[in-house]
Amino acid sequence: MRLLRIGAAGAEKPAVRAGENAYVDVSDLVTDFDEAFFGSGGLDRIAGPVAERIAAGRTQTLGDQRIGAPIARPHQILCIGLNYSDHAAETGQAPPAEPILFTKSPNTLVGPNDDVRIPRGSAKTDWEVELGIVIGRRTSYLDSVDQARDAIAGYVLVNDVSERAFQTERGGQWTKGKSAETFNPAGPWLVTPDEIPDVNDLGMWLDVNGERRQTGNTRTMIFDPYVIVHYLSQFLVLEPGDLINTGTPPGVGLGMKPPVYLKAGDVMTLGIEHLGDARQQVVGP
Amino acid sequence: MRLLRIGAAGAEKPAVRAGENAYVDVSDLVTDFDEAFFGSGGLDRIAGPVAERIAAGRTQTLGDQRIGAPIARPHQILCIGLNYSDHAAETGQAPPAEPILFTKSPNTLVGPNDDVRIPRGSAKTDWEVELGIVIGRRTSYLDSVDQARDAIAGYVLVNDVSERAFQTERGGQWTKGKSAETFNPAGPWLVTPDEIPDVNDLGMWLDVNGERRQTGNTRTMIFDPYVIVHYLSQFLVLEPGDLINTGTPPGVGLGMKPPVYLKAGDVMTLGIEHLGDARQQVVGP
Repeated sequence: MRLLRIGAAGAEKPAVRAGENAYVDVSDLVTDFDEAFFGSGGLDRIAGPVAERIAAGRTQTLGDQRIGAPIARPHQILCIGLNYSDHAAETGQAPPAEPILFTKSPNTLVGPNDDVRIPRGSAKTDWEVELGIVIGRRTSYLDSVDQARDAIAGYVLVNDVSERAFQTERGGQWTKGKSAETFNPAGPWLVTPDEIPDVNDLGMWLDVNGERRQTGNTRTMIFDPYVIVHYLSQFLVLEPGDLINTGTPPGVGLGMKPPVYLKAGDVMTLGIEHLGDARQQVVGP
Repeated sequence: MRLLRIGAAGAEKPAVRAGENAYVDVSDLVTDFDEAFFGSGGLDRIAGPVAERIAAGRTQTLGDQRIGAPIARPHQILCIGLNYSDHAAETGQAPPAEPILFTKSPNTLVGPNDDVRIPRGSAKTDWEVELGIVIGRRTSYLDSVDQARDAIAGYVLVNDVSERAFQTERGGQWTKGKSAETFNPAGPWLVTPDEIPDVNDLGMWLDVNGERRQTGNTRTMIFDPYVIVHYLSQFLVLEPGDLINTGTPPGVGLGMKPPVYLKAGDVMTLGIEHLGDARQQVVGP
């Protein structure tokens, strides 16, 4: 299934994709794609009714309705830093020996085609196309990497927007440069694992104003999604609906010579194989 | 007012303190002390009814009922690092030029007298008595430090429990050592600002097994609560009910020579003037 949320910001209705321009409304079955939904076996619960509705032709046209982030505001957004061997090289840093964890404020989450707002005082707002993991159940102290498969509800395209000066020149910890409003576009869909042939072989890209900036593939991840979920579960408790941004491939603005950053009027387009694509206009502070 | 939440973990009922061993039940007036409560003027709404109930003698005895954290799980827990000049000196680091921001997973929040569990694989679990700020309204880009006063719902005693090896020896960002389950005891009460003569002159202390370890006063904070809230509002959006741990005074285990860390069976007792005190038993992984 591909879950999506349709409607005005803050009033999205849960739906399931049913082809190129169609969806099944499931707002009579679930309140939202949130912690309660994932934590109570919601994915299993809607699978049958969704299949029946599609078979019966009970679909609706998406048209130009707004798509929100495919999950409600999560309990936490965790991020893995420097997780692509080729991106680590680009930043001039050694590949990390174990996953680097930092966080974003959960209220940074916005829809895949919403505006990204440059924060006040920013001169170094940057892009990062990433594979996002959505957690499917309460998860703590997994015994093995293999168990992580059962903890994952699905995957989502995200843009881990970052302000590089706030991140590294304003006091040492990265959160400060990751948490501005609109800094986590996600979607268009949450794709369940059965719809993806191999999560460790997904091409990904990001353009700014039509120029290709990032090209990558999840196969150059240093720590893959299962390793990440197993690892994080040793340090904290993952809640259903939590989002994990798994790191970005090469081609961020910081890595260009000289560095190039976003300005009002820029347009970012990005995508990951099997996860759809997104378009974000950059607006001023 | 002093807000508290009474009852079993996950089923606490909102109440307001009414003297040494008494409270007013307000669960008929509000669902919980959560984002919706603070964000909708809940404090103002209950003040009248609470005063009437106290005047009419409609109070109940607290007795040995469990007290939970005085706020529901917040949208985010933000923490300020190295914020006491005397603690910065103790760790051998220069006082920061601007607030150091890191985060804890929101599901670390527990009651003031709940057990603190040492994480698996931990050898360096440490204590940190701190003043916590609870945010009262959605707050972004405050124009002045003075405006921060109106953004604060109240203050709470917290223990910012920390695993020092996870924090600094496992990949560089601090979150990893701050987010284990039970790592954020808070309470007994949320105290509204009108109940505190001067938030910048509050004595604080923490004992381990009856031995005094931390002694401090908020007057040695490098960045006071108003400066912190104003500062953070320039980087992210604070939501009603968000918790900000404002840093710890000297006397943490890491600062002892040689360092001393917590072990199962230890008991931490801690307090801050006007904010009450708390007692946490340390248990094994």
